[in-house]
Amino acid sequence: MKRITLLTDFGTRDGYVAAMKGVIASIAPSAFVEDASHDIPPGDVLSAAQALSRYWHLYPAGTVHVVVVDPGVGTERAAIALAANGHFFVGPDNGVFSFIDDDQAVQLMIPIGASRTFHGRDVFAPAAARLSTGEALHQLGTAIDERLVLVKEQPKGNVGEVIAIDRFGNIITNLMQAADVEINGVEVMLQVAYGDVGEGELLALINSDGLLEIAVRNGSAAERLGISRGARVTLRL
Amino acid sequence: MKRITLLTDFGTRDGYVAAMKGVIASIAPSAFVEDASHDIPPGDVLSAAQALSRYWHLYPAGTVHVVVVDPGVGTERAAIALAANGHFFVGPDNGVFSFIDDDQAVQLMIPIGASRTFHGRDVFAPAAARLSTGEALHQLGTAIDERLVLVKEQPKGNVGEVIAIDRFGNIITNLMQAADVEINGVEVMLQVAYGDVGEGELLALINSDGLLEIAVRNGSAAERLGISRGARVTLRL
Amino acid sequence: MKRITLLTDFGTRDGYVAAMKGVIASIAPSAFVEDASHDIPPGDVLSAAQALSRYWHLYPAGTVHVVVVDPGVGTERAAIALAANGHFFVGPDNGVFSFIDDDQAVQLMIPIGASRTFHGRDVFAPAAARLSTGEALHQLGTAIDERLVLVKEQPKGNVGEVIAIDRFGNIITNLMQAADVEINGVEVMLQVAYGDVGEGELLALINSDGLLEIAVRNGSAAERLGISRGARVTLRL
Repeated sequence: MKRITLLTDFGTRDGYVAAMKGVIASIAPSAFVEDASHDIPPGDVLSAAQALSRYWHLYPAGTVHVVVVDPGVGTERAAIALAANGHFFVGPDNGVFSFIDDDQAVQLMIPIGASRTFHGRDVFAPAAARLSTGEALHQLGTAIDERLVLVKEQPKGNVGEVIAIDRFGNIITNLMQAADVEINGVEVMLQVAYGDVGEGELLALINSDGLLEIAVRNGSAAERLGISRGARVTLRL
Repeated sequence: MKRITLLTDFGTRDGYVAAMKGVIASIAPSAFVEDASHDIPPGDVLSAAQALSRYWHLYPAGTVHVVVVDPGVGTERAAIALAANGHFFVGPDNGVFSFIDDDQAVQLMIPIGASRTFHGRDVFAPAAARLSTGEALHQLGTAIDERLVLVKEQPKGNVGEVIAIDRFGNIITNLMQAADVEINGVEVMLQVAYGDVGEGELLALINSDGLLEIAVRNGSAAERLGISRGARVTLRL
Repeated sequence: MKRITLLTDFGTRDGYVAAMKGVIASIAPSAFVEDASHDIPPGDVLSAAQALSRYWHLYPAGTVHVVVVDPGVGTERAAIALAANGHFFVGPDNGVFSFIDDDQAVQLMIPIGASRTFHGRDVFAPAAARLSTGEALHQLGTAIDERLVLVKEQPKGNVGEVIAIDRFGNIITNLMQAADVEINGVEVMLQVAYGDVGEGELLALINSDGLLEIAVRNGSAAERLGISRGARVTLRL
C-alpha cells in the first residue's frame, strides 16, 4: 500500500488541493492519499514544520509526505525531496522540513511549463506520485548538501518560550521539565491531565509530545492569558 | 474492504488528526480511513453524538467509527468500544455514543506509556485499527454493563426544544410533527422544501432526519431569530 | 481503481458529508472517495463551478465528480448526471456544471422515499456510486438536451472583472493578458511570481489557470483594495 499525506495552507474551497489530488490520482492511481491538513495559517512555515513533526514518524515506512506552505513559490527558492528513516518528503526548501533529519536530499527538477505560482500541482504532486510508484529519489533531481533549517529556540536556564498555540488555545512551550511555571505574571500549577482542575481553571502539564503546555480546562489559555508565539515562560523550580 | 471513520474536535492544523491516521496506517495499512469531521466545536459531546447518528448506519457493516471529543481525557473516564448492528465504535465514555444501541461493550485497556492528554493517538486509533483487522471486541478490554448516556429531551405536549443549529443556521428541533410552529414569538409556516418560500423568508419543514426544522431560504434562521440550543418551540396545531 | 470526488457547501461538522460517504461505501465499497472541499460558501453555485473547473480534468478518466451546492433542493430543479471527456458529473441542475462541456446528460430519477431536503444523501451519492461501479449513464435517468449554464462574463476591450477571491485574498480576474492593471484607482504592476515584490506589496501576475490575478505578497489583496467579486479591472496597455 503506497500512501501519500498532504499538508498545505490552501484551504480546500478554491479547488487547489483537489487539483493536487487529481495529478496524484493520474500518476499513481492506487496510492492512498490522506489529508493531514489544509488549514495551516497562510504562509506559516513554522506551524507546518511543527504539525509535520507530530505525525510523519507514526506512518509506515514508504509513506510520502507532501508539504506545500510556500509563500516563495516561483522565486529562486528550491523545490526539494528528502528521504529520512524510510519515509519521503516533498516540498519547498523554506524550512518546512526543519525538524526532519534526512538521509538523502535532492533538488527537484522543475518540469517545463510548470506554473510560477502553483508548484503544489505542477512540481510537488507529480514528484510525490512518482516516489509512491517506486521511483528512486535520485531520479527526481540532483543531490544537495544544504537546505534551509529553522533553528529551534532552546530554553535558557529556567526560561523557555511559547512555540505554538494549538486549535484549543493550549499554549505549547519548548520546556520539557514537569514543573509549575510563570507566564505573563501568572503562576500556573503542574497537573497531569486537563480534567485535574475545575472547569475554566488554568493548569500546566506535560503534553503528548513531551513538552510543557499551559491550558485552561474546556477553554483557551492563549486567550485567557493574552499569549502568542514567542512569549516567555519561566519554570518555578 | 475494512473502513474506519474519524470524528473529532481537533481541527486538522496541529497534526493531531494526522497522528491518528499514521497510527492506523501502521497497524492496518489496507484500511480505508474516511474523515467524518474534525470540526466538532471543542468539547461539544452532544454535537458529536448527533453528527454520528446521521451517518454510522449508512456505512456497511464492519465499519469502525472512531469519535474523539474528549475533554475528560486522562481522568478516570473510561475508554470504550462498542458493537452495534455489525458496526464498531471506539471513543471515550462521555456520552458521544448516547444514540447508539449497543449489543456489546468493553472498557479498553490503556496501553503502557499512553499519554494522559492524547488518547486519540495512543488508545482509540490503535483499538480501531485492531478491530478493522478482525480482532474481536472482547480482546480489546473487559466487558462493561453501563456507560454514560445523555438523555434526549422529549417534547412535552406541543412544546419541543431546539437540539441543534447546523452549519447553515438551520434550527433543528426534537419535534416530529409536520405543523406550523411558534419560536421566540414568531410564527413560522410549514413547507416542504427550502425553495418553497421567497429568498430570505422563514419556513418550517420536516428535515432529512424526520425532525421539524426551522430555516431561512438562503440564510441563517438561528441568526434571524436569535436562537441557540435549548430554546423552546411550540407547535401550532 | 474507481474514484469519486466530493464538493459541497455542507461543512463537515453536522455529519451530512459523512452520510453521503456512508451511502457510497455501501453501494461501491472499493471506490476511493476523495474530498475536494466542503467549504464552498453556502449556496455559492458560481464558486463551486469555478473550484470544479480547477481539478476535474486532472483526475484520470472514469472519475465521478459529485457537486452538492444546492439551495434549490426539493424544488422543481432537476437532478442531473453528465459525461464529459470520460469523466462523470453528478449534482443539481443549477449551474454548478456551467464550465463542463458535456457529451451526454441525463435527468436523474428521484428514488421513492428520497428526502426533499437532502438529495446529497438520497439522490447524488447513490447515483455517483452506481456510476463508479460501471453502470451506464443512461441507466440512471432520461436524456436531456438543455441544462442551466451560467454565462462567464467576458472582458469588454481593456476592461475585465473580478470573478473570484481565493482563500489567500488573491483577486482573480477574467483577463488573460500579461499586463499592468488598474483596480479601484490603484495601479498594479505585472510580475511573474509572488516573491518578486517586497513583503506586503501589491503585484499582478498570470496565475496557474492562465488568468490575470492581483495579489499582495504574504497578505490579502482583496482586503487591501476593498474588492469583492464583480469589481472592474482595467488593463494598462
